[in-house]
Amino acid sequence: MHFLELIEKKKRGGQFTKSEIEFWIEGYVAGDIPDYQVSALLMAIFFNGMSKQETTDLTMTMVASGAQIDLASIEGIKVDKHSTGGVGDKVTLILVPLIASLGIPVAKMSGRGLGHTGGTIDKLESIAGFQTELTTNQFIDQVNQIGLAVIGQSEQLVKADKLLYALRDVTATVDSMPLIASSIMSKKIAAGSDAILLDVTIGSGAFMKDVENAEILARLMVELGEQVGRKTIAVITDMSEPLGLTIGNRLEILEAVAVLKNQGLPELKEFVLDLAELMQKLAGEVPNRAQLEANIANGAAYHKLVEMVVAQGGTEAALLKPAATTYQIVYSAKKSGYISRLDALLLGEIAMQLGAGRQTKADTIDNEVGIVLTKKVGAPIKEGETILTLYSNQEISQLINQQLECAVQIADYSKSNPSIIKIIESE
Amino acid sequence: MHFLELIEKKKRGGQFTKSEIEFWIEGYVAGDIPDYQVSALLMAIFFNGMSKQETTDLTMTMVASGAQIDLASIEGIKVDKHSTGGVGDKVTLILVPLIASLGIPVAKMSGRGLGHTGGTIDKLESIAGFQTELTTNQFIDQVNQIGLAVIGQSEQLVKADKLLYALRDVTATVDSMPLIASSIMSKKIAAGSDAILLDVTIGSGAFMKDVENAEILARLMVELGEQVGRKTIAVITDMSEPLGLTIGNRLEILEAVAVLKNQGLPELKEFVLDLAELMQKLAGEVPNRAQLEANIANGAAYHKLVEMVVAQGGTEAALLKPAATTYQIVYSAKKSGYISRLDALLLGEIAMQLGAGRQTKADTIDNEVGIVLTKKVGAPIKEGETILTLYSNQEISQLINQQLECAVQIADYSKSNPSIIKIIESE
Repeated sequence: MHFLELIEKKKRGGQFTKSEIEFWIEGYVAGDIPDYQVSALLMAIFFNGMSKQETTDLTMTMVASGAQIDLASIEGIKVDKHSTGGVGDKVTLILVPLIASLGIPVAKMSGRGLGHTGGTIDKLESIAGFQTELTTNQFIDQVNQIGLAVIGQSEQLVKADKLLYALRDVTATVDSMPLIASSIMSKKIAAGSDAILLDVTIGSGAFMKDVENAEILARLMVELGEQVGRKTIAVITDMSEPLGLTIGNRLEILEAVAVLKNQGLPELKEFVLDLAELMQKLAGEVPNRAQLEANIANGAAYHKLVEMVVAQGGTEAALLKPAATTYQIVYSAKKSGYISRLDALLLGEIAMQLGAGRQTKADTIDNEVGIVLTKKVGAPIKEGETILTLYSNQEISQLINQQLECAVQIADYSKSNPSIIKIIESE
Repeated sequence: MHFLELIEKKKRGGQFTKSEIEFWIEGYVAGDIPDYQVSALLMAIFFNGMSKQETTDLTMTMVASGAQIDLASIEGIKVDKHSTGGVGDKVTLILVPLIASLGIPVAKMSGRGLGHTGGTIDKLESIAGFQTELTTNQFIDQVNQIGLAVIGQSEQLVKADKLLYALRDVTATVDSMPLIASSIMSKKIAAGSDAILLDVTIGSGAFMKDVENAEILARLMVELGEQVGRKTIAVITDMSEPLGLTIGNRLEILEAVAVLKNQGLPELKEFVLDLAELMQKLAGEVPNRAQLEANIANGAAYHKLVEMVVAQGGTEAALLKPAATTYQIVYSAKKSGYISRLDALLLGEIAMQLGAGRQTKADTIDNEVGIVLTKKVGAPIKEGETILTLYSNQEISQLINQQLECAVQIADYSKSNPSIIKIIESE
């Protein structure tokens, strides 16, 4: 088999056999196939796609390219959750302690953020002392003891995806459905959970821009999960405005705590409850919203978060420490009306410039900085009333002020964004 | 400007500005843009094409990436000729001395062969003593003195094409019309002639397989030539069977000599005369077949070839030296009928296995070996009559015998291949 022939085959719209996909992925991971050939193939895949069978084969070949976590020694149905990325997305921090408080084990590996999207691991690291690197044994032991652990993704998982993703990133071949689906699902499958909840975000702050494409991707991943024996549900959710009211690691931790203490934004709690019901379903239980509500109201969910923080080296005091920045700059409404736009992408980029995110992988994050919104899209606002506050350790540049002008809009009618747009399950 | 954005632009079907193309080509030649990004772009170009303006800009930017030959010190309209590659193609060896014998100066740079297609420079090097490397001054002086020189293409010409072609070759991105056209035309333009005759071959032994695509390519190159002030005519010619009766460097030189001495295959002479008329036209003269015929009959064209051979270090005796091989293996007709197939690709590959061509650039060529056909497609043949003779310095393998069975077919009806299928000129 020559790799050149595989490029030619895909260029002509052909379909790869499993052994051809293995030849590609194994050869690439072994360093036998050069980047310049793989990037040509990736572009051919962008144009000619891959069948469901090819996508499944690619996913499982990628899974086999690295270590796989065996969670068999944890009793029960382990559920995992993944978001395709968003601005201010602290859902995992609220959802997983809530789920764990029901007795459903959560052994979760999370990623770091890049660009305008945040990563759960970065947020957790804003808690002084919190360890995101555990050995697999420590990870499993913790889940067996307290029912919950969230750690960084092992470097040993899905080696092929690391290589392929880095190459896609610099060759304009990221936005290919089968490549996105196999990248996400290979990591989830290798991480070992029995069932997977996928949050496919759409809108300005998300990777997918429209519902149609998000649904194609969601269906592809749900089918892929089923085909390899992992029960999968996908939700398509709105990311045209930031999730909740905060952007920035420390600020988002505090917002998650607020929701778990039943003091947060009601819409955010309802959104998390919607997802929690789906996770109950994935865990083989009957969704029970009253029970979920109760576990927030009685502090069980919050207590589970504290338990995890302590188990992983942090303290409750560190968890609750307020964000401390040199400047808090208030941005107020220039006219009265209803907030009609809080652009997730622009606000995410502003937060990144303040230091809340990484422009390149090498950048370090300032955990304290970020943005706190007072209201969401659709809310009434009066001239002079605060729309948002920038938490910053530097003065605000002219550029950021201009971006704010674009990011925020006030209209004379009220129209709010939905949260869950669609739920996609296999039959 | 970021190269990643250029890949994305072409992926989305956008058109490059001249400065974007310069950014690409200059950056790649300078080593600032890595192969893996360029190969992704090449694949995007395969799918989304390039406009005529983009193709012209690419061509001229490639021309500017290396040295350009200035033929201004040679009086008259200099004409060049290029073939997209064929099996047994010795046309240049007959055509250019014939044209030069009319007083039209020919300052030609030629290439080497790879795979089943031969190169004029390899053929000339089968003449003992013949120098294919001259300095630009020596090259121009010789044309001024005797009206004709054929040398190898300078390594300094069109650096971008060398890099791009090598990358296309290993990334399945060779067969893109704008990339083929710009590769061919950039070399012809950099080589300095005023007018260009392009022979676009089609059929099993050629790069293009059908007339439709050959015509698209031909038109593209003719327009490109006109747009940059080089008068260009393209002919689409048949390469389903070898050109003439011989394959192999020494054998082809001898066949060229035979045609110039008016002793060769009449069809080959007629084909060369057709092309010669077009070259007269390109040189601003009125095509004059009688004059061309006369210059063969009176020995002027043959004499011009001898003059060139001597000027470049060879002798007439070396020119005429017969092919000397250990074995001459005769392959005969298994039944009577008409030759219906002499597959150019298969015969080219057989000749290559005998040592007449290179499988990789590093291979050395055995000038003596090759194939001599006795007849062309359409000719009647009797059972037991010789179809072809293999000139070999090794015994003939089972594989070659099997390939011969496929390459040669006899039918009970006569049908011959055309030579020039179509002539394409700008209006």
